[in-house]
Amino acid sequence: MPLPTIEWDKGKVKMIDQTRLPDELVYIYCSEVKSVWEAIKNLRVRGAPALGIAAALGTVVGIQDSQAVDYDNFYKELEEVTGYLATARPTAVNLFWALDRMKAVAEANREQALSRIKELLLKEALNVIEENRKECRDIGRNGAELIKDGDTVLTHCNAGGLATADYGTALALIFTAQEEGKRIKVYADETRPLLQGARLTTWELLQAGIDTTLICDNMAAQVMKEGRVNMVLVGADRIAANGDTANKIGTYGLAVLAEAHNIPFYVAAPTSTFDLSLDNGSQIPIEEREAEEITCSFGKRIAPEGVKVYCPAFDVTPARLITAIVTEKGIARPPYGDSLKK
Amino acid sequence: MPLPTIEWDKGKVKMIDQTRLPDELVYIYCSEVKSVWEAIKNLRVRGAPALGIAAALGTVVGIQDSQAVDYDNFYKELEEVTGYLATARPTAVNLFWALDRMKAVAEANREQALSRIKELLLKEALNVIEENRKECRDIGRNGAELIKDGDTVLTHCNAGGLATADYGTALALIFTAQEEGKRIKVYADETRPLLQGARLTTWELLQAGIDTTLICDNMAAQVMKEGRVNMVLVGADRIAANGDTANKIGTYGLAVLAEAHNIPFYVAAPTSTFDLSLDNGSQIPIEEREAEEITCSFGKRIAPEGVKVYCPAFDVTPARLITAIVTEKGIARPPYGDSLKK
Repeated sequence: MPLPTIEWDKGKVKMIDQTRLPDELVYIYCSEVKSVWEAIKNLRVRGAPALGIAAALGTVVGIQDSQAVDYDNFYKELEEVTGYLATARPTAVNLFWALDRMKAVAEANREQALSRIKELLLKEALNVIEENRKECRDIGRNGAELIKDGDTVLTHCNAGGLATADYGTALALIFTAQEEGKRIKVYADETRPLLQGARLTTWELLQAGIDTTLICDNMAAQVMKEGRVNMVLVGADRIAANGDTANKIGTYGLAVLAEAHNIPFYVAAPTSTFDLSLDNGSQIPIEEREAEEITCSFGKRIAPEGVKVYCPAFDVTPARLITAIVTEKGIARPPYGDSLKK
Repeated sequence: MPLPTIEWDKGKVKMIDQTRLPDELVYIYCSEVKSVWEAIKNLRVRGAPALGIAAALGTVVGIQDSQAVDYDNFYKELEEVTGYLATARPTAVNLFWALDRMKAVAEANREQALSRIKELLLKEALNVIEENRKECRDIGRNGAELIKDGDTVLTHCNAGGLATADYGTALALIFTAQEEGKRIKVYADETRPLLQGARLTTWELLQAGIDTTLICDNMAAQVMKEGRVNMVLVGADRIAANGDTANKIGTYGLAVLAEAHNIPFYVAAPTSTFDLSLDNGSQIPIEEREAEEITCSFGKRIAPEGVKVYCPAFDVTPARLITAIVTEKGIARPPYGDSLKK
C-alpha cells in the first residue's frame, strides 16, 4: 500500500508536497481553503483523482469554521468556497465532480442542523477518498489482464499512487500485474515541463521494485521503433462522452506514435473522470500555464529573455487512437459512445 | 552575418562555448588537440557542419607542433591526431569527412617539405570553413522557395549559425526567406536533454528579429493539431544513400507526427553530411550519451537514484517521411537514391 498522498488529519488537509519529490518527502498541512487552492494551483497535489479529493477536503476546510446561523447563509458560504476551489485548475473534471458532490450533500440535508451538515460534508469527503481507494484496486484488477508476463509498458506523466488515494490508475494495472507474478518493465517519459514522470513515476515504480527506465519525451518514438515497449498506458484528466481523452501534454503525440508503430494505447481512469455532458474532446477546456514553467526549469533560466512561449498543460487524444479505456467498472472498447454509457 | 561559431585565431581554435549560451557569450581557445576533443565531446561545439570544421582545425592544432623530420613519421602522427578526434562523437559524418580531407591533403603532398604540408593542412581547414560558409548561403537560397510569406516553421535542436560557419542549414532557409521579405514565424522545440532549441535556436532567431515561440518537445503534436505550423524543418547529422537521415533525437517522432498531420517535413544539410557508403539508415551508428544528461539537468538531480536511463543522442528518420532534402546543390526529392547521386 503506497503512502497516503492526501488525507484528513485533525481538521487539516495533509498532503505530500509533490513539488519536492524525489528530493525529499515533505508533508504540508492546509488549515485554510486558500492554502488548498495554492497547493492545487502549484501542483503540490496533482493527478485527476487526487484533485477530486483535494477539492472535497478543501471544501471541508473552507466551511468548517463557518459562523453562519441559517442554511441559506451557510450554503452561500459553501458556494463561495467551492467556487473558489473551482478556479484553481480548469481541465481535470474530477475537481468539479467532487465540488458538485459536496454541494449536493448540503442540499440534500438542508433540514439538518448546520453542525450536522458539516459532519456530513466531512463524511462525504472521506467517502470520496475511500471510493477512490477501491476504484484504484478495481481499475488495477480489471486492467491487469491487458498486461502479459514479460511486457514493457511506456507511460507518461504520473498516473500512480501520487495521483490518487491509493494505487494509481495507469500504474494500478502495473502494480496489480506485478502482484499477479508477471514480470513487467516500464519506460517512463520524463514529462516536460514539470517532470512528473522523472520525479514521481520513477520514484513510485522503484519503490515497488519495478524495472524502470527514464527517457526524455522526445525519445518515445525511437523507443517504439526499436521495439522496446509493447503498449502505452496513461491516465486521464477528463474523458468526453465519445471517448476523447484529455491528459497531460504529450499524450496525444504518444497516441499518434503508438498507432504508427502498431502498439496498443490504453487509458486508465475512474468513472469520475468522465464528463458525459461533453459530446467530444473539442469542448474540454485546456489549461495554459506560465511561460516560466518552461523557460525557468531546473531552477535556472534555460531560454533567452524575450522569447514567446506556448505552454498547454494538456492535450486531447481522439477516441479513435485509444485501444481501450479501463475503469473501475470494466474495460470499455470502441465505439466508446455506447460502452461508456454502459 | 552571424558571429563566427568557430574559427582559426593565431595558432589556436577559437570557438563559442555553446554550453554557456544563452547566459553568456564566452569564447574558448584550444591550443591542444585534447581541448578540441573535449569541446566536441561535451558539445561546446556541436552541429554536423561545425563538427567538420572543429575536426579540421583540431587536426591542424594537433599536428602543427610535430617534431617529425620525415613524411612517414609525420603521417603517423597525423593519423594519431585524426584517429583521436574521430573518437569524440560517432554520429555526425562531417567529422570523419573533414578528417579524411585532412589526411588526403597530406597524402597528395607527400613530396613537399613538412613545413609546406603543415601550411597546406591549415589552408585545407580554412577551405572547409569557407566552403561551409558558401554552402550555408546556397542552402538558404535553394530552400527559401519552400517557405511562403506567412508560413510558420517548426524546428528541432539547432541547425543554425551555431551549427555551422555561417548561416546554418535549416535556419538558413528561414534567414534567407526573411531577407526576401517574407514574414516567417518559428516554433522551436526545446530539445531535451541538452536544450539546444531553447538555448541556441531561440537565441539566434531572436537576434535576427524573427517571431519565435518556444515549446517543449512533447507539445509539437498539439502545435501541429492546432494548425499552428505548416512545415517542419530540421538539419541532419548523417544521411545514407537512400535518404534515411540521422538527426537529433526527437526528429524521427516529429517526422511521424508531420505525416499524420499532412505537414511537409524538410531536411537541410550540406552534401558533406551524406554518407553514400551506407545503403540505409540502419547502418548509421547512434551515439548513446550519459544518464546524467537526463537525470542531472543543469546541476540539479531531477530523478531518483537507481533509475535506469536510455539516452540516445540521435534517431534515424526513414526517407519515406522526408518531403525533400535541401543541399547547397539543390533540392532532392524522393526517390532519394537517384536524386542524391545526381
